[in-house]
This record gives sequence, C-alpha cells and structure tokens, in this order.
Amino acid sequence: MSAILFDLDGVLYESDRAIDGAADTVNWFRKNHIRHLFLTNTTSKSRSELVTKLAGFGIKAKKEDFLTPPVAAGQWLKKNNINNIALFVPDTTREEFSDFNFVSNEKNHTDAVVIGDLGEQWTFATMNKIFRILINNPQTKLIALGMTRYWKTTSGLQLDVGPMIKALEYASGIDAIVTGKPATEFFQAAISLLGEKDNIVMIGDDIRGDIEASQRAGLKAVQVRTGKFSESDLASGIIPDAILNSVASLPEWWQANISIHI
Amino acid sequence: MSAILFDLDGVLYESDRAIDGAADTVNWFRKNHIRHLFLTNTTSKSRSELVTKLAGFGIKAKKEDFLTPPVAAGQWLKKNNINNIALFVPDTTREEFSDFNFVSNEKNHTDAVVIGDLGEQWTFATMNKIFRILINNPQTKLIALGMTRYWKTTSGLQLDVGPMIKALEYASGIDAIVTGKPATEFFQAAISLLGEKDNIVMIGDDIRGDIEASQRAGLKAVQVRTGKFSESDLASGIIPDAILNSVASLPEWWQANISIHI
Repeated sequence: MSAILFDLDGVLYESDRAIDGAADTVNWFRKNHIRHLFLTNTTSKSRSELVTKLAGFGIKAKKEDFLTPPVAAGQWLKKNNINNIALFVPDTTREEFSDFNFVSNEKNHTDAVVIGDLGEQWTFATMNKIFRILINNPQTKLIALGMTRYWKTTSGLQLDVGPMIKALEYASGIDAIVTGKPATEFFQAAISLLGEKDNIVMIGDDIRGDIEASQRAGLKAVQVRTGKFSESDLASGIIPDAILNSVASLPEWWQANISIHI
Repeated sequence: MSAILFDLDGVLYESDRAIDGAADTVNWFRKNHIRHLFLTNTTSKSRSELVTKLAGFGIKAKKEDFLTPPVAAGQWLKKNNINNIALFVPDTTREEFSDFNFVSNEKNHTDAVVIGDLGEQWTFATMNKIFRILINNPQTKLIALGMTRYWKTTSGLQLDVGPMIKALEYASGIDAIVTGKPATEFFQAAISLLGEKDNIVMIGDDIRGDIEASQRAGLKAVQVRTGKFSESDLASGIIPDAILNSVASLPEWWQANISIHI
C-alpha cells in the first residue's frame, strides 16, 4: 500500500558511476512488490536510453517505469486536446512527442510551445523565434520541461532551461506550465500513475527540487548525502523526513518507518 | 507650467524613417516654450549620435535634452561609490562609462555588472559569462539599462534587454537595479531634470514601458498607434490618457487637453 519515487542522477548514479548499493536497493523494492517509479528532470536522454543506462548498473527497468518532463508534457497536451506544437527540445527528447503534429513555421497556428534545455544550441536567433511564436499566438501554451537554474559542465556552471523560460515569460506575458520538478503537478502525475497509496516516498539529492517540492505535494521525502547534496542544504529550513548516507540504506529505513510487515 | 517627455523609437521615427509630422510636433513644443526631454531606453546609440540622428529628421536637440539609461546608471554608480564594473553594453554606450574602471576577467572582483541590450551580440556564451560573474561575486550589483521586453527590427520583433535580465536574475538569485523604463526611479530622474510642473505628459508606443510605467510614476501618458503598438495592447487593462494615430496629432490634443492658452 506504499510506493517509492527514485530520483536518478545523484541518487542511483553520479555521471557514469553507480552509487554503491543502488542496484540492490531497487531490486529489494522489486522483490517485495513495492510499486516504484523513476522521477527525473533529465531531458538529455530518452526513456529508452535511461533503461539502457540503468541496465548498465544492474538495475532492471521498463520504459513505463520512468516519469520525465517530456512524458508529463505529452500527457498534459493530450488531456488538453492539443495537437499542434512547436518543439524546442534536445534531439533525444523528440521521440517522446511523436504523437503530435509539429509546427515549424513561426507564422502558422501553434497551440503549444514545448521547451527543454538546448544546451549549446541556445542562440539568440532561437530565443527570438520562440518569442515570435508566442507573441503571434497569444493563446499558445508555454510548456517548460523543468525550471532548473543551472548545471555543472566540465567547463563550469552553465545556464539551464529555467532562465530561458523566465526570459520568454517576461517577453511574451505568457506564464509557463512546468512539467517537471519542482512543479507540484509533476508529482501529482506520478501519484496518479501509482494509484492511491497510503505512503508515497520520494528519495532525492536536491533539497529544493526533490525534498521541498515533494513535501509540498504531500509526499514523504528522503534526502541522500550523495550527488549535489551539501551539508549547507540543511540550513535552508527544509526538513527532510529522513536523511540517509546513500540510497543503500533505504530498505533498512523503509522497514523501520514505512511498513513493518513487507 | 507643463512638460512633455518624448519616447524616440516608434514615436519620432521607426528605424531610419521619421514618423510623418514628428519634426513639426517637436518644433511646435519648442516654439511654444514648453519644456521637453527625450526619454529613451536605447543603448545602441550615445547621446551625441542621437543628436545627429534627430538632426537628420529635422529635429533640433542638445545632448542635455536626453535622459538615457546609461546616464542614469552612471549617476547611480557614483552615488553608491562604485568604481569597478563589468560592462556588457553596445560599443556606442561605453563612452557614457568612461569614468569607471572596467573589469574584464570574470574571476576578478567586480562591484557591479552593467547590462544593456547587445542585440545580435547576445550569445549563450555571453549569458553564461555574465551568470558566472554574478554567481562568483554574490555581493555584485546587477544594473539593467532598462527592462524593455522587445523591439521592432526590420526583420521582425526581437528580444530586448529585459528578458535577458530576467534570465540572469532567476539563475543568480540577484535582483536587478533598473536605470531605465519602466522603473519609476527613471521617470523621477526625468521629473527632477524638468523641475516642478503641473502636468508632465509621456508620449510612447510601448503600452507597458511607456504608458503603464509613466502613469505609475504619476505622469499622464499618451499612446501612439505607431512603432510597436498593436490593437491587442488595449486589451491589457492599461488605459492611456489618450490614444493618438501618431505624434503628429499631439499639438492638437495638447491644446484641447493640457493648456488652453499657449
């Protein structure tokens, strides 16, 4: 009657290295028939690629076990009967939108503009193109695949999709719909995929995007001391339901705190 | 006992073409000894160049007749005893900051980052460079030369400095100090240059940056149907004190509404 949501990067792996015990933990939940989902903001990998990546760490997963911003965006678009979309996402993410009709000419009618992090592909020309679509179609929905501020590349900190969305919101006067962490709707989409449960627990490394945001959505939240975690995160005033050294300790914590009989 | 503030681009000219009647209108105010200022967010031209540009349209003006964001920014920096600045402005604007010490290496200490509209020079690399200066110097002031959302180029609407500032504020967590429209302080700087008046009227093409913002500062605001104006602007809920087809009708409106005897 309970379920677990796993963040990926920083919880199950860091870059290309698995966190010790990650596979054992996921397999423990599978063996005990506890429902689980992988909840990630990544838009640089499709779900098929994520399946392959986890397999490389000894973690079995199906495509349907992942909830990513593109998947949540697709669900939102369908629920709102939107078919004509302009897509500004990394190539790896395009396949998640194969059911939709792509509008590439900025003068044509568009019902929604979907934006992910384009990384080095961000140019002033692209920003202007998106802006013109929005201003020419005032009813257009602006869908943001997450609102991450920045990330750490090998050459230093780099702006992520969040700042670009802020720029476009301000220029167009259209507020974005965010289908990714930290949006409450993203966690609600996970809850509705899991079905009604007594206890849903999120485990993550990001004190704001994982912990604060999932608690706001009514979930329990477990902070790990891996990934982007820093001890100063605990001075933020956000109080996780538990703090674990890593995902390896989760089964032990689960038995003590969530279900006594598994 | 009244005064007029003229926005430039979209009111007196569009790109390199004068709006019909613009010179006659400005000359009418001059002839009738009505105090006026040119209030522009442009940072692509220095005041000397603006004098020359207006002269080409038959409009006489002195350098002191212009209040621009770089001029207001320079005043703000001096008042706050700031000397080391990182400057991201068009070349033409650099001369307004010749009294300051420029920091060009992002690792060196910077007291303020001054940002104007870079137009086609906006690149993702530049955005990241500015972001890294801000994140490496958390006490740095972020000075925005205006918060204009967009402007009309010959190839279509183009993002202006405002959206870029929003992106940088969100990424860095630092709020900008705005020395340009729509900041109330910018209009107050104009009012203090004009001296006490019964009626100060702003005429502009931007429903937010000119009309809403000047009304907020206690001015009367006249919207023109030229430049970036679109009929949908009137659905914004902002109510200009008058709407004119162009600046050519201003003297007639002025005589009927501001001063009966001129």
